[in-house]
Amino acid sequence: MTKTVYNFSAGPAVLPKPVLLRAQAEMLDWHGSGMSVMEMSHRGKEFMSILAKAEADLRTLMSIPAEYKVLFLQGGAIAENAMIPLNLLAGKGADYAITGTWSQRSVEDARPYGDIRVVTSNAADNFTHVPALDSWTLNRDAAYLHVCTNETICGVEFLDMPDTHGVPIVADMSSHILSRPVDVSQYGVIYAGAQKNIGPAGLCIVIVREDLLERASKLTPAVFHWKTQAENQSMINTPPTYGIYIAGLVFEWLMAQGGVAAIEQHNIAKSRLLYDYIDSTDFYNNPVAKANRSRMNIPFRLQDESLNDAFLKGAEARNLLQLKGHRLVGGMRASIYNAMPLEGVQTLVDYMKEFEKSHSM
Amino acid sequence: MTKTVYNFSAGPAVLPKPVLLRAQAEMLDWHGSGMSVMEMSHRGKEFMSILAKAEADLRTLMSIPAEYKVLFLQGGAIAENAMIPLNLLAGKGADYAITGTWSQRSVEDARPYGDIRVVTSNAADNFTHVPALDSWTLNRDAAYLHVCTNETICGVEFLDMPDTHGVPIVADMSSHILSRPVDVSQYGVIYAGAQKNIGPAGLCIVIVREDLLERASKLTPAVFHWKTQAENQSMINTPPTYGIYIAGLVFEWLMAQGGVAAIEQHNIAKSRLLYDYIDSTDFYNNPVAKANRSRMNIPFRLQDESLNDAFLKGAEARNLLQLKGHRLVGGMRASIYNAMPLEGVQTLVDYMKEFEKSHSM
Repeated sequence: MTKTVYNFSAGPAVLPKPVLLRAQAEMLDWHGSGMSVMEMSHRGKEFMSILAKAEADLRTLMSIPAEYKVLFLQGGAIAENAMIPLNLLAGKGADYAITGTWSQRSVEDARPYGDIRVVTSNAADNFTHVPALDSWTLNRDAAYLHVCTNETICGVEFLDMPDTHGVPIVADMSSHILSRPVDVSQYGVIYAGAQKNIGPAGLCIVIVREDLLERASKLTPAVFHWKTQAENQSMINTPPTYGIYIAGLVFEWLMAQGGVAAIEQHNIAKSRLLYDYIDSTDFYNNPVAKANRSRMNIPFRLQDESLNDAFLKGAEARNLLQLKGHRLVGGMRASIYNAMPLEGVQTLVDYMKEFEKSHSM
Repeated sequence: MTKTVYNFSAGPAVLPKPVLLRAQAEMLDWHGSGMSVMEMSHRGKEFMSILAKAEADLRTLMSIPAEYKVLFLQGGAIAENAMIPLNLLAGKGADYAITGTWSQRSVEDARPYGDIRVVTSNAADNFTHVPALDSWTLNRDAAYLHVCTNETICGVEFLDMPDTHGVPIVADMSSHILSRPVDVSQYGVIYAGAQKNIGPAGLCIVIVREDLLERASKLTPAVFHWKTQAENQSMINTPPTYGIYIAGLVFEWLMAQGGVAAIEQHNIAKSRLLYDYIDSTDFYNNPVAKANRSRMNIPFRLQDESLNDAFLKGAEARNLLQLKGHRLVGGMRASIYNAMPLEGVQTLVDYMKEFEKSHSM
């Protein structure tokens, strides 16, 4: 009998239970093939059908326009941080918006490859709000504008974009992709590490507008050369086949939930439950401006931080796992991705209330 | 009831059945944690213990000296083909030995990053032998000598190395790592995509001598910067956690088989069974020089190639899968990695005899 836990890890993160049950059932024999998906040639008809369905379902879920290519790559979002300038700069400069530690990291990863310009930053206020869009010092000659639309560590989320006058926007959506509808046509490139709302670590999805495929530097490694990969169905070498299979099962599960519009309502309800409680008491607090609060990653602090260890110990005793905040910011963090049920958040809030009651003077 | 198949895929390839059974049993609950390995934070104590054990077991299996770092990376061997010059060239040139299509590919992948010199090539004889070591035109000022010690497509294998006068040897061992003892100290770097003898696709192992970590170009992306990854236990971002877990199970299985010295005896017996039969008849043939024949990847042709489709159809009817040769060379190929049982090869040979009998005049 497996114990029930609620896993608030920021990623790798909780997966839908039906996905894990299906993967378990199919582990030794996928659809009567006699093979595990892990054992299949990536160029065989079985895996090709898995890949094709995963792409088709992702296109449906996100309403991806036909002129966008979907790539299934490796290396995580941090590898793409380097590959974005290699694929796109073509001798120009690029604009970067810093709205948290991940977008700040993207700037560092891009710097070796060209002229990287920070056009806005919320570092001075500890990454707790998105600077007014009309204050960003955008460059009209930029190769692209880079943003991170959900900051996993700082808990900042935004989808309103400034008017870039045609400069393509490149968005790291790793930690909120598929959690809400997104107008893909607003972006030149969307990329996301899989290990939050998509599937297992080791898969990174890149959605890129076709006209942006012509700019790659000769220094772009083949496995990260978007045009080459687009022309080869992400298979210039062996892709992370099992990760793609699990992602496909997650996409099927998400469609069965009603797609991203339906899951968004769940995500609104779950995040509201937690934020409303945090805002109702001084015992806990979340520092992010209300308009920019993430529905996926909710950092919070205890007013009395000497209670942190007791809080985490009590949580673990109730099978509420991985609530410790990121080492860069401390405190607590509840990551409540698509696969986290409402009951998980309710159990957490109940525990937080109980802890408050027993530790208030 | 799962049907029994013998899967001769060159990779992703057959995995040991006990590994798949264990992964299946642990899919929803690893060691009482209530979590799938796919759901675990990579920095949590559970996954850290999985990673530490995988590395320790690999070190034991390969007798890796203490002054070598073991990295668990992504992107496959083709990503490393670009990252090797970025990590090692430091303004010098490098020597490359072409002994098949994969080492030829390595040359192409490395060329954008510096002065890449081909010091020997067997292309003129269709990649069917290893040129005499004393004919290689080595450069004493080379940053490294690159070799591919088992050519998956061409079926060429070798471990004897020329005297490089201290120039470190960088070896792509993707398709025969762990199939036989290797003296790691002969090499500066050993790298291998996992999807043959290690585990699932999406994991790439790099074993690098510490003193070679100081040469990286500033253009090396962070996730492929060996020194940075070595200092961070391969976790500057989320590693391919599930792939590492499966690799760890494969390492455990291999130790239970008696390690690489014991598995080598199995591999000798399996490959001899197939080669001896091929050499006993004109109906089939393998073109590789006997001294350089791979124990892992055995390409062969039917004398009458008009029978290819019938051969493959009959094989599939007997659950002998993925025997079609690589698209670059045609014919047939049987990849018989560690996890292929002797009965699989015997069943293949029995079928080949039967097919010969029924199709000879």
